[in-house]
Amino acid sequence: MSTVSGMTTFVGGASGDWRVLSISPVKGEGLALVPHLAILDETAIVRATDSVTGASGVRWFLRGVRSYLRYVERAEKTRLDEASPPIGRPEATRAALIPIRKSAAWWDLPQDERRAIFETRSHHIADSMKYMPAVARRLYHARDLGEPFDFLTWFEFAPKDADLFEDLVRMLRSTEEWTFVEREVDIRVER
Amino acid sequence: MSTVSGMTTFVGGASGDWRVLSISPVKGEGLALVPHLAILDETAIVRATDSVTGASGVRWFLRGVRSYLRYVERAEKTRLDEASPPIGRPEATRAALIPIRKSAAWWDLPQDERRAIFETRSHHIADSMKYMPAVARRLYHARDLGEPFDFLTWFEFAPKDADLFEDLVRMLRSTEEWTFVEREVDIRVER
Repeated sequence: MSTVSGMTTFVGGASGDWRVLSISPVKGEGLALVPHLAILDETAIVRATDSVTGASGVRWFLRGVRSYLRYVERAEKTRLDEASPPIGRPEATRAALIPIRKSAAWWDLPQDERRAIFETRSHHIADSMKYMPAVARRLYHARDLGEPFDFLTWFEFAPKDADLFEDLVRMLRSTEEWTFVEREVDIRVER
Repeated sequence: MSTVSGMTTFVGGASGDWRVLSISPVKGEGLALVPHLAILDETAIVRATDSVTGASGVRWFLRGVRSYLRYVERAEKTRLDEASPPIGRPEATRAALIPIRKSAAWWDLPQDERRAIFETRSHHIADSMKYMPAVARRLYHARDLGEPFDFLTWFEFAPKDADLFEDLVRMLRSTEEWTFVEREVDIRVER
């Protein structure tokens, strides 16, 4: 995982490389339905700011930064680095953007108690690994930016692995960790 | 520690409640010398944006957010909460703002290895606790904001505890953790 902290902006609106299939409120408030999703990196957003903010049809922006590892330990990192497929595989034409906000109760916990819930009891890393290399994943942090969500997770997979991805999502939502989620939206797209 | 993620902006310029005593580059590039430091919370910055950005004498802004605990464990949190003095004690008329950026090598480490350096080997929490309740401390996170520094730490103390504070700073700079610091500036102020 790179530690480059460039900001990425996901733009829901009338244009973008990804066609939106569904936007489902999983917990809490949803997001406005839009036909397209555009993903702008730091350079692109600077170039695109005028046109994007002035464009008709833009309904929402979600911003996040790739950042450093908050829970992953060395042995897990080694296995993740080996098993993780890259973003942008030609066959991975389906994707999901899942923004999540966790509760104040979660953020008030010290590091060891969050780690215990996240991995020791919820197996977030170990169980997610079973879905590699079919599902590629990239995490963006948003909490310190004052965004409405704490994390944006981007998943990519081939259409043949769509059922497997549903399993992954169900697994993540059945954990103790997930009881701390107070807002989640599930955005499915294809290109 | 509160988990409210409101942004705080430290403004170096011609005005502000704190008079600058010194601005010393400890490692890497320093910051422009200014006579005053103003501290603006989220509400204030919105109100002050026009006047601040338009004001003569403003040389730099440093932004950060109070955020959740990255390394502190439950037992440490309990002791910290008991021992930590509040910000704003009337007798604490001296303060230091110490912005720090750590190296890519630090941020590439997984969580367990950063924790081992931070506390197991550098005793950051345990040794800092010896300086309480004389020195009050507030940490602001800035890395995910794309700021030039990763952290801004604000320390407050009474003039009679100035020597003690020098001990604290010396202690922090003698650790293994500090070998990962690639930029640090030490700004001393009084009100």
